[in-house]
Amino acid sequence: MIENNLHLRVRYADTDKMGVAYYANYFKWFEAGRTEMLRATGLPYAEIEQLGVALPVTEACCTYRKPAHYDDLLRIVSRLREFPRASLRIEYEIFNQNDELLASGHTTHVFINADGRPVRPPRIFLQTLRPFFEKTA
Amino acid sequence: MIENNLHLRVRYADTDKMGVAYYANYFKWFEAGRTEMLRATGLPYAEIEQLGVALPVTEACCTYRKPAHYDDLLRIVSRLREFPRASLRIEYEIFNQNDELLASGHTTHVFINADGRPVRPPRIFLQTLRPFFEKTA
Amino acid sequence: MIENNLHLRVRYADTDKMGVAYYANYFKWFEAGRTEMLRATGLPYAEIEQLGVALPVTEACCTYRKPAHYDDLLRIVSRLREFPRASLRIEYEIFNQNDELLASGHTTHVFINADGRPVRPPRIFLQTLRPFFEKTA
Amino acid sequence: MIENNLHLRVRYADTDKMGVAYYANYFKWFEAGRTEMLRATGLPYAEIEQLGVALPVTEACCTYRKPAHYDDLLRIVSRLREFPRASLRIEYEIFNQNDELLASGHTTHVFINADGRPVRPPRIFLQTLRPFFEKTA
Repeated sequence: MIENNLHLRVRYADTDKMGVAYYANYFKWFEAGRTEMLRATGLPYAEIEQLGVALPVTEACCTYRKPAHYDDLLRIVSRLREFPRASLRIEYEIFNQNDELLASGHTTHVFINADGRPVRPPRIFLQTLRPFFEKTA
Repeated sequence: MIENNLHLRVRYADTDKMGVAYYANYFKWFEAGRTEMLRATGLPYAEIEQLGVALPVTEACCTYRKPAHYDDLLRIVSRLREFPRASLRIEYEIFNQNDELLASGHTTHVFINADGRPVRPPRIFLQTLRPFFEKTA
Repeated sequence: MIENNLHLRVRYADTDKMGVAYYANYFKWFEAGRTEMLRATGLPYAEIEQLGVALPVTEACCTYRKPAHYDDLLRIVSRLREFPRASLRIEYEIFNQNDELLASGHTTHVFINADGRPVRPPRIFLQTLRPFFEKTA
Repeated sequence: MIENNLHLRVRYADTDKMGVAYYANYFKWFEAGRTEMLRATGLPYAEIEQLGVALPVTEACCTYRKPAHYDDLLRIVSRLREFPRASLRIEYEIFNQNDELLASGHTTHVFINADGRPVRPPRIFLQTLRPFFEKTA
């Protein structure tokens, strides 16, 4: 499993007139979380794109438990539980500074080439991730 | 059932460096769709909030099939299939100008009062929606 | 002069916890306005990009007079007062449904090629715009 | 003078199909910058709002010199050069990880009360800021 923690602030731009963070913005935080998770493996997403592939989202879900407020210091937990095959599933949890769980969700992704067609994950991507999934027994 | 169609353009602001619409923006389009669906019933969401309640999102999901491109003229279909009880589920489909299905998804909502506590739907809300769900047999 | 009117709704996504539209979103509305202004000339911006050039913003300013509220039906007035030379200046005014002026501003733009270098406006762009600036005396 | 540096990453969400950061997002970064500048004085903006006032933007300008790219690590410099009177002017510069100046701009603000009327800055706000503007000669 790969797991990463990212801390970020709720901006005024993220809020809406209900006084809390607008629901679509959680998906931007998911993106920020998975970006840092990939960077921590040693293969930043920017380098993946330089291989001529992209990793668009095919499904995204979020369950909202408690609202995030302006200036809250959030912790975004991103987890890749299973070694990626044709597709990739990343799970997320968002906590506030009081360690209250505000939201959880997931995204699924597939690799596509420059023509937009699904392709197998690049070899270097799999090589980079494999050590995180090896049994340590 | 209540069903509504909203047409809107993909803006440059909606796109990302993959050249297509960024995944979180579909949820903004869902919002635009359900807002017009409610307006078409005769009870705009702005009037619902004047009753002292709000209708935040408790769950949001989207499945992405084909990308939306800059300047595409989208059609957002919003559907309320079941008469709302404690919670409300709205389904969405997004088509482009060639009537290709780009994405589908749903949001669930609960009514909350000014203190943020879940409350029953306002009477006028239920009265406004009821005619759309009566058997016409 | 070229002038265009675009009507659009303030979405929940556009608001912030002050209860009004967030200041950066006015620039998204400016973009929507100039896009429709170009489309009305007969040369949509999407076609301009197909010529291998882009028209990025080099300066953007907005003066905020009155707030835009959720569900306001805005009118975005976009104006190109002077025939474009090396650069292009577009002016904007935003009104609400009561015809109150909420904001005014401008953007300036230059054409760049695929390498990001400034280039002269494409011939077809100038040809398309010229009739709007000819003296009718 | 008060000056603050904030570092932040360009997210995929910030980019557009031109492959660089969308122009309106610089104003979100300005907001992030001034928020941290105020926090560094000891009076976070969230506490200012608890005094019953708000500090909306009355003018915002940005000049774009070089594009910000995905995953760039930006440095946002926010400066309050003059002690605030009826209004407040904050200046910004945005640099990338190579210390290239990408953009500069400013925002002006006035304090308003709960009714949206302009009011004098709160006493505690002025008291907090005064030491930063005293001659040290």
